[in-house]
Amino acid sequence: MKDRIHNFNAGPAALPLPVLEEIQAEFLDFKGSGMSITEVSHRSKWFDDVIENAVVRVRRVLDLDERFHVVFLQGGASMQFCMVPMNLLPDGQSADYVNTGTWATKAIKEARIQAKDVNVVASSEEQNFLCIPKDISFSPHAAYVHITSNNTIKGTQWASFPDTTGIPLISDMSSDIMSRPFDPSPFGLIYAGAQKNLGPAGATLVIIRQDMLERVPQDLPTMLKYTTFVEKNSMFNTPPCFAVYVIQLVLKWLEETVGGLEKMAALNRQKANLLYHAIDKTGFYSGAAEKDSRSLMNVTFRLPSEELERHFVQQAMDNGMGGLKGHRSVGGCRASIYNSTSLEAVKALVDFMEEFAQKHG
Amino acid sequence: MKDRIHNFNAGPAALPLPVLEEIQAEFLDFKGSGMSITEVSHRSKWFDDVIENAVVRVRRVLDLDERFHVVFLQGGASMQFCMVPMNLLPDGQSADYVNTGTWATKAIKEARIQAKDVNVVASSEEQNFLCIPKDISFSPHAAYVHITSNNTIKGTQWASFPDTTGIPLISDMSSDIMSRPFDPSPFGLIYAGAQKNLGPAGATLVIIRQDMLERVPQDLPTMLKYTTFVEKNSMFNTPPCFAVYVIQLVLKWLEETVGGLEKMAALNRQKANLLYHAIDKTGFYSGAAEKDSRSLMNVTFRLPSEELERHFVQQAMDNGMGGLKGHRSVGGCRASIYNSTSLEAVKALVDFMEEFAQKHG
Repeated sequence: MKDRIHNFNAGPAALPLPVLEEIQAEFLDFKGSGMSITEVSHRSKWFDDVIENAVVRVRRVLDLDERFHVVFLQGGASMQFCMVPMNLLPDGQSADYVNTGTWATKAIKEARIQAKDVNVVASSEEQNFLCIPKDISFSPHAAYVHITSNNTIKGTQWASFPDTTGIPLISDMSSDIMSRPFDPSPFGLIYAGAQKNLGPAGATLVIIRQDMLERVPQDLPTMLKYTTFVEKNSMFNTPPCFAVYVIQLVLKWLEETVGGLEKMAALNRQKANLLYHAIDKTGFYSGAAEKDSRSLMNVTFRLPSEELERHFVQQAMDNGMGGLKGHRSVGGCRASIYNSTSLEAVKALVDFMEEFAQKHG
Repeated sequence: MKDRIHNFNAGPAALPLPVLEEIQAEFLDFKGSGMSITEVSHRSKWFDDVIENAVVRVRRVLDLDERFHVVFLQGGASMQFCMVPMNLLPDGQSADYVNTGTWATKAIKEARIQAKDVNVVASSEEQNFLCIPKDISFSPHAAYVHITSNNTIKGTQWASFPDTTGIPLISDMSSDIMSRPFDPSPFGLIYAGAQKNLGPAGATLVIIRQDMLERVPQDLPTMLKYTTFVEKNSMFNTPPCFAVYVIQLVLKWLEETVGGLEKMAALNRQKANLLYHAIDKTGFYSGAAEKDSRSLMNVTFRLPSEELERHFVQQAMDNGMGGLKGHRSVGGCRASIYNSTSLEAVKALVDFMEEFAQKHG
């Protein structure tokens, strides 16, 4: 497909081309149903297969045991910022939050709006959120510890997860879920908006451990209770069918084409190493995040001037590479290299960066 | 497309074939962006055009003046059951609800879960929800009156909206929005899950009148406040981009191919008349809803026995007509004939019904 660009968007982001081609091919007639996937009833055997397959693949890729429930919600991570404390932080208890940037700050804000007792036990705000805090002391009686595993805007990522000595970890994994293996056991809940590593915007993956469900207050509105989605297998009401369908195809691609999560992680390391090497070997580019906190998903960097940055983004676009402008709140440049961004795309970007530096350095 | 069936699903439901074909054609490269619509950033000129166009078309089709805001949310009508009282029913006041079936019952339940003061001023529960209540006395000081304009399960519809003498009307219009013209002035809020007349599952259209926004409590979670969506033009966080994109195409089809809302309504009346006539002219079929409350969107009917109903649904499917089984909670048969269900499909069904009655009557 020579008309397609190399897509470095931060989200909604690139999807695997074979997945897009499969969607296109069956768009008027899904699996012989005589209907588009967008027209199929959610109470049909066709959609049952789709959502069951999506759940099975999530469980298998992340190696989740039977304690974990896998459900699909709507509203993105932003809705989870409010649902997590509403469901899992009982009055009279407090929760620990680690503030690593814009999204964590919003999660903290939404807990406090509900008059919940929040301890911000660590923050990298004084470091302009360019690193992940170290050596954190958690409150011994915290109801949970909330972290943001990857921070899209400044380009930082937890290289490994903190030991919370048994306190349930809760993580916003919107921007790095399925990018690397990890031990799910310490997690009480994981949430992820689909539009980075999983699929299109419009679905939120929530993984919740059985013991967390006991905390859910009975008197919450039905659509704001995790138990509703667990008890009805994400089908209390009409789910975001198309997004779940695409997620299932992306996970199939991850398992069958890429070859599983270990191989995905190796490819992601390779892509990030190429880019960080291209940045570090010149005096022209400078990485924005501290080296030990660098994200393998969002590579943030600066050029010698804002004018050169604008020029870089524009010329990259002219050369078929899109989405390289930094987040509107910080400027600079950012290459988001989620699972679906190909090695070929990263190599093209590295070549372009070398050329651009030679010309303007 | 001879592989496609005539789709009488209650939702997710049929979409116009030209819309599906347009989506398919540009699925790998949206408007020369080099990306799929599922990969385009919501903060891009491409998506700005999509959502702006969707809003403009909603405003134009429904003839909304500047008092009304048009926003897209997630979570379906079920989320609105909880958000409406949360935002618009202040403590110390009460709201009137009319109970016309399953969905209204759920709306009432979600208000009461929040300990809101709800008056069920009329109900057709004793008539098994097979009619719309008449001559309703509303509470003079109600904060709003909530109705369900069309009831998918039993197949009833408000032929005209009640005069609430200035009390804001709020309606769940999930299953008949954009099916007929109406005066929007009495409405404080209208909500509609997209998956019947507007597009695929995954987006909820909300139309809210400016004066309603003044009621929204400031201390609600951000994602549960209507003001958040109005102030940020539905883009506080990543919206359900694909669903909004399809909605915009469906509305373009409604305006440019069908020729506008009056023509849509005439076509819908024609389709419903054909079907109800096919039911009434025999002693074989019997309409489920009372005649003066019949829905133009969901035509519910019975056959002489459950065995014949099963046989009818199966044989219709064998003849390329799907989705005719009644809702799992009531049985019988149901033909949902939303905007996108063609006259051709309805004629095919009528022919099949005649044949089936002759053979089994």
